[in-house]
Amino acid sequence: MKIGFIGLGNLGTPIAENIIEKGNQLFVYNRTASKTKALTDKGATAIATVKELTTTCDVIITMVSDDKALKSISEGPDGLIQNMQKGAVHISMSTILPLTAEELSKQHTDNGSHYLASPVFGRPEAARARKLNFVVSGEATLRQRFEQLLKDAGGAGVWDFGDAITAANTIKLCGNFMIAAALEAIGESVAMASKSNIDTQKMWSFFSQTIFNSPIYNNYGNIIVNQQFTPAAFSMQLGLKDVNLVLSQAQHVQQNMPLASLLQQHMQQLIEKKPGLDWSAVALAADL
Amino acid sequence: MKIGFIGLGNLGTPIAENIIEKGNQLFVYNRTASKTKALTDKGATAIATVKELTTTCDVIITMVSDDKALKSISEGPDGLIQNMQKGAVHISMSTILPLTAEELSKQHTDNGSHYLASPVFGRPEAARARKLNFVVSGEATLRQRFEQLLKDAGGAGVWDFGDAITAANTIKLCGNFMIAAALEAIGESVAMASKSNIDTQKMWSFFSQTIFNSPIYNNYGNIIVNQQFTPAAFSMQLGLKDVNLVLSQAQHVQQNMPLASLLQQHMQQLIEKKPGLDWSAVALAADL
Repeated sequence: MKIGFIGLGNLGTPIAENIIEKGNQLFVYNRTASKTKALTDKGATAIATVKELTTTCDVIITMVSDDKALKSISEGPDGLIQNMQKGAVHISMSTILPLTAEELSKQHTDNGSHYLASPVFGRPEAARARKLNFVVSGEATLRQRFEQLLKDAGGAGVWDFGDAITAANTIKLCGNFMIAAALEAIGESVAMASKSNIDTQKMWSFFSQTIFNSPIYNNYGNIIVNQQFTPAAFSMQLGLKDVNLVLSQAQHVQQNMPLASLLQQHMQQLIEKKPGLDWSAVALAADL
Repeated sequence: MKIGFIGLGNLGTPIAENIIEKGNQLFVYNRTASKTKALTDKGATAIATVKELTTTCDVIITMVSDDKALKSISEGPDGLIQNMQKGAVHISMSTILPLTAEELSKQHTDNGSHYLASPVFGRPEAARARKLNFVVSGEATLRQRFEQLLKDAGGAGVWDFGDAITAANTIKLCGNFMIAAALEAIGESVAMASKSNIDTQKMWSFFSQTIFNSPIYNNYGNIIVNQQFTPAAFSMQLGLKDVNLVLSQAQHVQQNMPLASLLQQHMQQLIEKKPGLDWSAVALAADL
């Protein structure tokens, strides 16, 4: 299996490194070519264009920042869809609209290749610790065939959501929305408690050992209590992008999501007035 | 130690039962006298008035529904404060305003008795399983002296928040606000996922085993996915009461809490248009 990898950002890089470390042969492409160096140092082969990658590889993983970036490497005369080998598989890890996954999947099918939706939960440090969770949906044979590769990529869990190509990205959007909601709730609580002269470190130690003892509340609670909003491991812009996707999907299925709308508004305000922060700073908008 | 107990509601009853089961001598009072029967069957002694309880007991636990109920049994010529023995202790488990705790504590001190703030996290089933978490604040000697009694009452954890009498109730309000926020977030997610043809049981199985693996998300996620909003183990009215307290405290310390305001609005709408539901139904307001 010759594996291609497109998108060596904050999260893509440790995932690609994990794949190499498990003894897989990896070919890497990145728009900013200098970012391939960390990977070629570990044994990957850098490839100059997306089109060239399609002639070398029968499996191509993409981990890019948004729907537009994924479409731009997938569509057109130099993109994945028109150039991938017959029977080759595109494994798409980006957080995108379910509808985009559906569109791309159809185009792959029409061109004799395949698309597997495989978005991922976890920050870069979770990738390095091999504690990611992949959620997958698409053709049954692909879900089975690539379970081991996703484990190699750092997946502590690979969660199968069935045939519907849209399912995995819907789950991913629900998850990121619930994380953003937790950030807002923790943020407002910590702000109120702090002004009420509570030792918020002690407060968080209590909550994270009891009713909110989960990875999300543990990690982000400490970030918020300590106001460690820079450097941004996951930027407010990316957070807003995801909340925008959540609201697009909600509109598509005619579901009101008033809390998602509140988060969207807060993130927009923060990007404008306090740029450069991690998305965990979302509740600061309450005091702008 | 002769222990009095006032407030045999959904949560007060199993807590009082726990105390008896650990071999403590318990005297019980309830406004609706018939509710004492479950306790007298187990060996408690029913007492007819609050005033009479103060002559019998040197420790009196209260677990009543709100600030007003607590003040009505505490203040006035027949209340706890004017009648409790010198050196006797009032252990207050209700979810109330930090300012109310401060007021009552001062009045107890002026009358030669003591007040210990000890609100509690956990639903009735957690009380029966002895998995409650008490948060305590007040005089250091009282916090130490009553740790064992709170464990007897079903406390898997007794968490010490120091001298400030207001601290424990502030923590309790932050906790209930974060739970309500999680209910809204889970509710909106499940609604959107369901309309997107996701198997929400499977979705919740995933989230509750991974990034949201905590008691709150486990319990309430299943309630919301299965729409088990009746009978109301914790009613929307009680939820709204707590969110109102959160916003009072926020106003007192001049902190905006826009998410708390959203929850308040949703709970008000639901009480009006879909009465009788558990507070976990909060996100249904998005579709009213």
